[in-house]
Amino acid sequence: MGERDVRSEVPARLAVQCAPSTRIQEFVVEILVAAGTDPAPAQSVAAAITGASLRGIDSHGLRLLLHYAKVVRSGRINPSPKLSFQRTGPSTGIADADNGFGHFASFFAIERGIELAKQSGISAVSVINSSHFGAAGAYVLHAANEGYAALGVSNSDSFVLAHGSVYPFHGTNPLAFAAPNYEGKPYLVDMATSAVTWNKVQDLIARGLPLPEDVSVDKLGEQTTDPTLSAALLPLGGMQFGFKGAALASMIEVLSAVMTGSPHCSQIPGMPGPDLSSHRRMGHLFVVIDPNRFVSAEVYRSGMRAYLHDLRNQESKSAIGVMAPGDREWAIEEARLRLGIPIPDQLRRELDGLADCLMVRRLD
Amino acid sequence: MGERDVRSEVPARLAVQCAPSTRIQEFVVEILVAAGTDPAPAQSVAAAITGASLRGIDSHGLRLLLHYAKVVRSGRINPSPKLSFQRTGPSTGIADADNGFGHFASFFAIERGIELAKQSGISAVSVINSSHFGAAGAYVLHAANEGYAALGVSNSDSFVLAHGSVYPFHGTNPLAFAAPNYEGKPYLVDMATSAVTWNKVQDLIARGLPLPEDVSVDKLGEQTTDPTLSAALLPLGGMQFGFKGAALASMIEVLSAVMTGSPHCSQIPGMPGPDLSSHRRMGHLFVVIDPNRFVSAEVYRSGMRAYLHDLRNQESKSAIGVMAPGDREWAIEEARLRLGIPIPDQLRRELDGLADCLMVRRLD
Repeated sequence: MGERDVRSEVPARLAVQCAPSTRIQEFVVEILVAAGTDPAPAQSVAAAITGASLRGIDSHGLRLLLHYAKVVRSGRINPSPKLSFQRTGPSTGIADADNGFGHFASFFAIERGIELAKQSGISAVSVINSSHFGAAGAYVLHAANEGYAALGVSNSDSFVLAHGSVYPFHGTNPLAFAAPNYEGKPYLVDMATSAVTWNKVQDLIARGLPLPEDVSVDKLGEQTTDPTLSAALLPLGGMQFGFKGAALASMIEVLSAVMTGSPHCSQIPGMPGPDLSSHRRMGHLFVVIDPNRFVSAEVYRSGMRAYLHDLRNQESKSAIGVMAPGDREWAIEEARLRLGIPIPDQLRRELDGLADCLMVRRLD
Repeated sequence: MGERDVRSEVPARLAVQCAPSTRIQEFVVEILVAAGTDPAPAQSVAAAITGASLRGIDSHGLRLLLHYAKVVRSGRINPSPKLSFQRTGPSTGIADADNGFGHFASFFAIERGIELAKQSGISAVSVINSSHFGAAGAYVLHAANEGYAALGVSNSDSFVLAHGSVYPFHGTNPLAFAAPNYEGKPYLVDMATSAVTWNKVQDLIARGLPLPEDVSVDKLGEQTTDPTLSAALLPLGGMQFGFKGAALASMIEVLSAVMTGSPHCSQIPGMPGPDLSSHRRMGHLFVVIDPNRFVSAEVYRSGMRAYLHDLRNQESKSAIGVMAPGDREWAIEEARLRLGIPIPDQLRRELDGLADCLMVRRLD
């Protein structure tokens, strides 16, 4: 998610006030519990939000707390979900989110997936009756930290053109993949299948800057670099090669909606409303693989080491050099664990207002 | 693979001579057997080549026969592989290609994967000691025709820049995904993670046409639209958003090389040589999923129908409208089953020469 120039991101963000991640995690729980959420789902959301903020995925970090606090009070989210798991085969199962937060159900599902993969080598667990699950990376990272490779996908409501369409159809349909890396933080891919995120558009509006070419269209389906006119995103690959990004979004739609029996993109109530009280019934799918069913621990370790070494040491004209997937995220996490998570003034004011309204101690 | 404008492709190809797919399949077997290959692997290669040609994936169709006939005689490919399968868990196993054709081992592996998924709901089968397996779609399609969803990946030798690198590093690293569609041909995604294929570059050189912007670089890593100067491909997303295409290529590298204990991209002898006698020891990975562990057949069927209907009926400014993944391939297959597979003059001359050399009846 987001762009990859660490240097241009960090200093800009350091100009704003920061808060320690531990305090943010606590604050998210306090806000969600004050809004009526049970402690367990509140803790899952807090872990996912804080992790995303730490890794620099600000689109799916602390800013989402405003949205989550709203939708748990408006009825969209069941504040007291009773999660259930139906095992449907030696290596498969269905986790029912009971219309609670997607984060809570997704941590639950990946735990079940790890248990099944431990027994059989690979597992697939679907999540049904769910809602937005934040950054997809959180759940596959959990598996990687336990020694498993994992793939996680979800669709969303319509934000992105189908290749050749005028209006948005697919969601930003993220794909996350993580795998153990015994010589550093886990290997991590966590990306939307659009070229940029919707949040990037909002960010550029706020800063009065234009969009890059070939990433967005206006309400008539014409390309625009004016973020205030942006009505939809283009799939990865843009106007000419977007059939590939759209194919990835479509594959994720099949895996997370058709395969799970959940509504597809255009059938899901829009994340920002106007309907904030209906359950969204979103689906996700997680696949967990035990690498040791294919290679010994030592061969895996040395293979990952050799691959990442060769990748990172490719000749580059950029001062940053070539990064492996996840390198940017872990560099930002290291900085933010040290310096705190930057909170833009506008976000802080909104969080202060939310805290006051819910009679919770402010963040600072 | 390839671009998606059916109308611009078919008439151009129809101007050249065509051959029936049944004859092509027979001819491929005859050539490979005359080159020393056992009948069983020759038949697998012929099925994969003919299927790719039928679906319009000409980069991985009949033209590859020239290459395959060369490498089986030069020693790279074991002409008489003894395939073996080691089951490593209830849902996992390793297929050893014995350095034969990747197509033979991949059909074998997906068959084992289907058997395991039938029992447990999902399976993963790696292929080791393999070589080029052609178009990845062949194997996952086989699973979809049996009622299973499947994902297949392979790396290759270096053709594509890492994001920010000067020289090629990753392979074109294809991803194929197929799923049953009970109201038509299977749902199919089959794509390289570069914006264009290397064959597209060769094709434009032959036709004296420029490359699109932002898909290729010269030997100094500078963007070029001159196909004669092209030394490497850019990952999907181009110079600016290629970190996403590169992340997909990297994920596929981890799945097909690190996870299988096989060499990674830059360690694999180049497909075109100069070394044509060493085994390439390539890895692939196939995941097979039983949709009926997650939804009833009826819910799956109606979900796929509703999703594809909504996708194909998105408003479009293009006369072609919006196509679902696979629609282009199946439209070309329908036409080519009727009219034959077009064979450019140059390719036909080369195939005639090969047939004469191996004392096999020419194609026509």
